[in-house]
Amino acid sequence: MNSIVCSVFVAATVPSLQDNTADLDRLQQELVTILGDNRSITISYECMTSVAREFRAAGFTGYALLNNLESSWVVVGFSAEKPDIIVGMALDLGTTHLEATLLNLQNGDILSEGNLENTQISFGADILSRIHHATAMRRQQKTPAADFQDPGLDELKRVIISAINELAELLTARAGMKTADIRALSVSGNTTMAHLLLGLDPFHLCREPYIPLFNRVPVLSGNQLQLAIHPIAPVWIMPSVGSYFGGDLISGILASGMAQSKKTRMLIDVGTNAEVVLGNSEWLIACAGAAGPALEGGVARMGMRAGPGAIEYVSIHPEKYELKYRTIGDVAPVGICGSGLIDLVAALYLTRMIDIRGKFRDPALEQDAARAAFMKEHLVRRDGDLCFVVTGINTTTDCDEVVLEQIDLDAMIRSKAAMYAILTTLINQVGLEFSELEEIAVAGAFGRHINPQHAITLGMLPDLPLSVYRAIGNSSLRGAEKVLLDERARRDCEKIVSSVTYLELNVNQEFMIRFSGARFIPHTDPSLFPSVPIF
Amino acid sequence: MNSIVCSVFVAATVPSLQDNTADLDRLQQELVTILGDNRSITISYECMTSVAREFRAAGFTGYALLNNLESSWVVVGFSAEKPDIIVGMALDLGTTHLEATLLNLQNGDILSEGNLENTQISFGADILSRIHHATAMRRQQKTPAADFQDPGLDELKRVIISAINELAELLTARAGMKTADIRALSVSGNTTMAHLLLGLDPFHLCREPYIPLFNRVPVLSGNQLQLAIHPIAPVWIMPSVGSYFGGDLISGILASGMAQSKKTRMLIDVGTNAEVVLGNSEWLIACAGAAGPALEGGVARMGMRAGPGAIEYVSIHPEKYELKYRTIGDVAPVGICGSGLIDLVAALYLTRMIDIRGKFRDPALEQDAARAAFMKEHLVRRDGDLCFVVTGINTTTDCDEVVLEQIDLDAMIRSKAAMYAILTTLINQVGLEFSELEEIAVAGAFGRHINPQHAITLGMLPDLPLSVYRAIGNSSLRGAEKVLLDERARRDCEKIVSSVTYLELNVNQEFMIRFSGARFIPHTDPSLFPSVPIF
Repeated sequence: MNSIVCSVFVAATVPSLQDNTADLDRLQQELVTILGDNRSITISYECMTSVAREFRAAGFTGYALLNNLESSWVVVGFSAEKPDIIVGMALDLGTTHLEATLLNLQNGDILSEGNLENTQISFGADILSRIHHATAMRRQQKTPAADFQDPGLDELKRVIISAINELAELLTARAGMKTADIRALSVSGNTTMAHLLLGLDPFHLCREPYIPLFNRVPVLSGNQLQLAIHPIAPVWIMPSVGSYFGGDLISGILASGMAQSKKTRMLIDVGTNAEVVLGNSEWLIACAGAAGPALEGGVARMGMRAGPGAIEYVSIHPEKYELKYRTIGDVAPVGICGSGLIDLVAALYLTRMIDIRGKFRDPALEQDAARAAFMKEHLVRRDGDLCFVVTGINTTTDCDEVVLEQIDLDAMIRSKAAMYAILTTLINQVGLEFSELEEIAVAGAFGRHINPQHAITLGMLPDLPLSVYRAIGNSSLRGAEKVLLDERARRDCEKIVSSVTYLELNVNQEFMIRFSGARFIPHTDPSLFPSVPIF
Repeated sequence: MNSIVCSVFVAATVPSLQDNTADLDRLQQELVTILGDNRSITISYECMTSVAREFRAAGFTGYALLNNLESSWVVVGFSAEKPDIIVGMALDLGTTHLEATLLNLQNGDILSEGNLENTQISFGADILSRIHHATAMRRQQKTPAADFQDPGLDELKRVIISAINELAELLTARAGMKTADIRALSVSGNTTMAHLLLGLDPFHLCREPYIPLFNRVPVLSGNQLQLAIHPIAPVWIMPSVGSYFGGDLISGILASGMAQSKKTRMLIDVGTNAEVVLGNSEWLIACAGAAGPALEGGVARMGMRAGPGAIEYVSIHPEKYELKYRTIGDVAPVGICGSGLIDLVAALYLTRMIDIRGKFRDPALEQDAARAAFMKEHLVRRDGDLCFVVTGINTTTDCDEVVLEQIDLDAMIRSKAAMYAILTTLINQVGLEFSELEEIAVAGAFGRHINPQHAITLGMLPDLPLSVYRAIGNSSLRGAEKVLLDERARRDCEKIVSSVTYLELNVNQEFMIRFSGARFIPHTDPSLFPSVPIF
């Protein structure tokens, strides 16, 4: 009775002339006795016909299916037999990708999983251009009518609803089910995505003082959002804290367990932005910064998201100068993802092919013969600039070459410097040292694929024992799964929202100073990185 | 803040970088402070866009419009100015007629009123034939699937929804408004009509042990029922007690005020059935019986409901033998309604044209010259049987004659006997005398038009001072109005439902004995009617 939809055994007496309580009142009265909390118990109007029929057919004894909401229980089904499976869908509604799992709410088993591109991309790659599209008409109308709905906003809502329905179709098909079998949906996404999903005006999100239209929304239902899931399925939208602190991060905090931990921990989530949270069960402090793009494959010309054909791992033997790489799916390389980039740049530094500023060394000046030979093969000049060829054109597989240019390297250095500056500004804010952290949870594809040692070599992550780092995967999705399964997690969301302090880095002088100091490999102050060799 | 939709003044602080609470959260927080009860406060998803826009446009200060529900407050609108009018519609959903009023929930003013025929009549004149139509397919299927919906039931639901929409259109047009301006609807109807309105299977209503599918239903919304009123308008369905004790009677009890009275009162509501309730604020006992048809114009060939052209008043001068009548709307007569029938039969008794058994006396045997002349003019033989011509064919107005046949008289006597038997059985049940009653409220068109003295003459109502009788009009509609306006009335409904005891007359031996005793004018025991002359 913890999951957002659960089944409860009911054995009611059979009606008679002496006991002529109406069928649904009879069911309700039994549930009052069984559940016995002070929440109201109602029977969903949309399900009354089927509940009443099944209740009678089952001889007034069987299993009631209930939406387990904060202030009410809502009966949404009845069956003679205990249901083996109650299907819930957890969704990470990302700006670029949707990722979801189908869960059995009876036991937490994963029934299927999958992902899709966010088709809103055709209206703008990033949050700002989406807001722009959603408010195109509104921006022309000084004082829009109360019932004015921007066609661009409608369009974005429609598109995302379709995408969710498509993903639901995909996941249920994989599990041999129908979308209407989905009895609950949880959604974690950033604040803008949540506004767009609900068709709510995002106009003020990107305008000072950056006020969202909502942070908390009541539990909705499938039919309110025109979703193809069960019409009365509760739709839980993860609450947010502000324009730049969305439900995806609340979800991540929830998934990391840090808000339940006595000892202080850190959570790093690298998406389009790098979002970092520090705290414990007593307090939470968070900030975000533009450290992400280079790491998520958004900057390098050959950069790409972690996906089939992405080079996710690179090594260069420090003496033999042998370059090895591995692609996701073991197919011919088509690009390089964040973890591959970190591996590559760390290797280029350790093999001294780039200097501490992240600039390619001139192969012509190289003294070491083996290194010179390797450089000759991989460091080529294009339009006068040096670049590193990870892999050449492969005529067999019809694949392009994968190349790292100086411009990509520079972006990478900025990103890693931003990341380290964020982490140090944040830890300094609360007067702690990195060494006092119990854990640093690294979320996302970034967390799953990177080698923390290489990130430390670059000076991106603090120089701590590797055991401190834990990859927690798509934490936004993991949190969404948690709220489906666990009533305490749903309540914790509210607790997290109200205990988070947000540190604004855009106006933070300390951050800017720390950022400058971090634009070297590993750092202008090498004593911060004792494990990294300095050349 | 008593009505089911009400407005509340809110003055919130303006957002800033220091106070970046989301707009709708800001509104909600203010309301928590203002309303301060333990009910949840949510903002209706469907209204979020307009509420947010108006809240901003009004500078975060103005009037929130709230649905005032039992366990929650739901914000459904916002305006800078205090709304003058909040429109609610109260509906008496009768088996044959719909009657409604449009109210201003701000002050209880009636904005317009009107009525329509229940267009379900084309599928059956009475409850049983409607249930038959609604379950036509289901009766053929031994074990229908859980999602099986009878097409006949769908049809009846569609028809009644259309009729309500039409009536809403009529009433709002009269008040210079639109149907979507209706912000709340209350419905009182019998249990079958409530089932048909909600499209819920009435199959078991007329089958032993006569179990309704529901007696209580949560507050629904306009859009759930596809009504043309505001989509988020709360739709309050008056609860019922059982198959034969519907929300219309609960509404009547509410309107009569008897459930709030320390002294015992009686309520008589004559519709298709005669429904009678006895009680006070401590206890209520009710019963129903088939006393109605003759009184509602459902039996006599010339009988009709109170409406234009219905003879509603008849007198015959006891010495001059002059017959006078009045029709509703003062138009040419087309039939005779319940009150006219009672007047007529009482006058026929007092002028000795019928005997104590309600049989026409033979005009040929009449001794009195004046009476003989009158009888000759009005008492004619058709197919060998005597009948009384109230008014002959009128060639000018192209109107038919209005005639009372012996068969109509017999039905009338049965009805009045049933009525008196019901009343005496009920009062005897609790060991009281009629003289102990503080009031007898007589509801409906019947109550509005009848002359209680004439009903006493016939032995239909007990021989009490006329001041004891009070006509309360359409009590089902009055109760529906009350729940829109008064929070306590909404709670009282629940109290009434749980305190009513229902007395089953169909299996009641005492009732049958009393019925036989009452089949004379005024009664086999004339001492019960000291004010009535015995011939």
